[in-house]
Amino acid sequence: MKKIMLTLQYDGTNYHGWQRQSDLTLPTIQGEVERVLKIIYQQDINLISAGRTDRGVHAEGQVATFEAQEKIPIAKLVYALNNILAKDIVVIGASEVPKTFHARYHAQKKWYRYTVYNHPIGNVFQRNYSLHVNYSLYVDKMKEASQYFVGEHNFQAFCSARTGVKTFTRTMEKCTITKNHNLIYFDFVANGFLYNMVRIIVGTLLEVGRGKLQPIVIPRIILNQDRSKAGPTAAPEGLCLKKVFY
Amino acid sequence: MKKIMLTLQYDGTNYHGWQRQSDLTLPTIQGEVERVLKIIYQQDINLISAGRTDRGVHAEGQVATFEAQEKIPIAKLVYALNNILAKDIVVIGASEVPKTFHARYHAQKKWYRYTVYNHPIGNVFQRNYSLHVNYSLYVDKMKEASQYFVGEHNFQAFCSARTGVKTFTRTMEKCTITKNHNLIYFDFVANGFLYNMVRIIVGTLLEVGRGKLQPIVIPRIILNQDRSKAGPTAAPEGLCLKKVFY
Repeated sequence: MKKIMLTLQYDGTNYHGWQRQSDLTLPTIQGEVERVLKIIYQQDINLISAGRTDRGVHAEGQVATFEAQEKIPIAKLVYALNNILAKDIVVIGASEVPKTFHARYHAQKKWYRYTVYNHPIGNVFQRNYSLHVNYSLYVDKMKEASQYFVGEHNFQAFCSARTGVKTFTRTMEKCTITKNHNLIYFDFVANGFLYNMVRIIVGTLLEVGRGKLQPIVIPRIILNQDRSKAGPTAAPEGLCLKKVFY
Repeated sequence: MKKIMLTLQYDGTNYHGWQRQSDLTLPTIQGEVERVLKIIYQQDINLISAGRTDRGVHAEGQVATFEAQEKIPIAKLVYALNNILAKDIVVIGASEVPKTFHARYHAQKKWYRYTVYNHPIGNVFQRNYSLHVNYSLYVDKMKEASQYFVGEHNFQAFCSARTGVKTFTRTMEKCTITKNHNLIYFDFVANGFLYNMVRIIVGTLLEVGRGKLQPIVIPRIILNQDRSKAGPTAAPEGLCLKKVFY
């Protein structure tokens, strides 16, 4: 038995998220990749990912491992997988890792990007990969507000109820906002993310951007640990898991 | 009656091209926009475009006109249309034009862009908007070859059989190739394009890029006016009508 690490890119538009559903008729990323691995390895395969992504969320660098008897040289595995996989999932790398490696527990940090398309009229080519915001945004105010998220904080105010975590404390290493023509990128690098954390932070930053919240209130929202004081959960299609760091 | 000009952006992936089909169950861009115009104007509307785009081909700046009784202020028409239109078609502008204006006959020139994603492994986010070329390309040779297309030429060698045009002579004002990381853009500006002309020129340039044709043979292929001497027709998903100039 060998342990293989896959790096995956996927367009989450047509999937019910990463995690295999009990209703197997619902397409999931995990389900599709496991289906193809079963064809190649002729056995049931269980994928363990660095983290689940929700319905409609994308990935450029998801990581997942599985164990299997070697049936195919690892150098050929990427091509074999991509030949059979649905066109909206691509394996961009495969390598052998030690048996002790764990895709989730050993992840040091992750980089998520949230994309906003900011224009009065939507862009058809961005519709599945960004949130369309048709009102004006104060980008400088959002930048100012974003800096309050950097550092070690209790992020409970930015976590959806459905969660079973032991602690809400995470360390945000980077939280930046970059505007490129009509696209606004929100980049987050942290040692871990709570459920819906990025989308709620973005929803809150957009409230700042439209002038409904002042940047200075962010520290208070963080301190209060009250989800109802933060902004709405931004739509999933703007979110992409860019990279997992080990 | 007023004549209205619409500027349209569309993702052609899920459409059987611009032109309304006799089989009305086949989705077309024209059919979808006419359907929505009929809802707004309460009458059958006939759209005339600057040119048809094929199945799977995209547009960022298609132009089409129609005539109708004024039912809605033109300033509100864009929003009304986008509210009802399928999400992969967006109207980005509307204005009144003189009755004598003709979207096709009065087009001075058009700009088409063809996009190639050049990497051993495909990119899921580019899969509907580029041709995936998994082999290495000599970009400098393609650039050299592209210059032979500039100017006034008989482009019959770069035209699919299905055509009823009077003359194969067109003037190519611009033919450039730009590489940006893994993306290669082929831009064409001409006073007119024959059927499949851009896709056949790109197919030919890719033969140069892979070393199967030398740049210097291009003038001979043009002169011979023989379709069989040019390269294959590149896939539609890489093609986009960027702009129509009046």
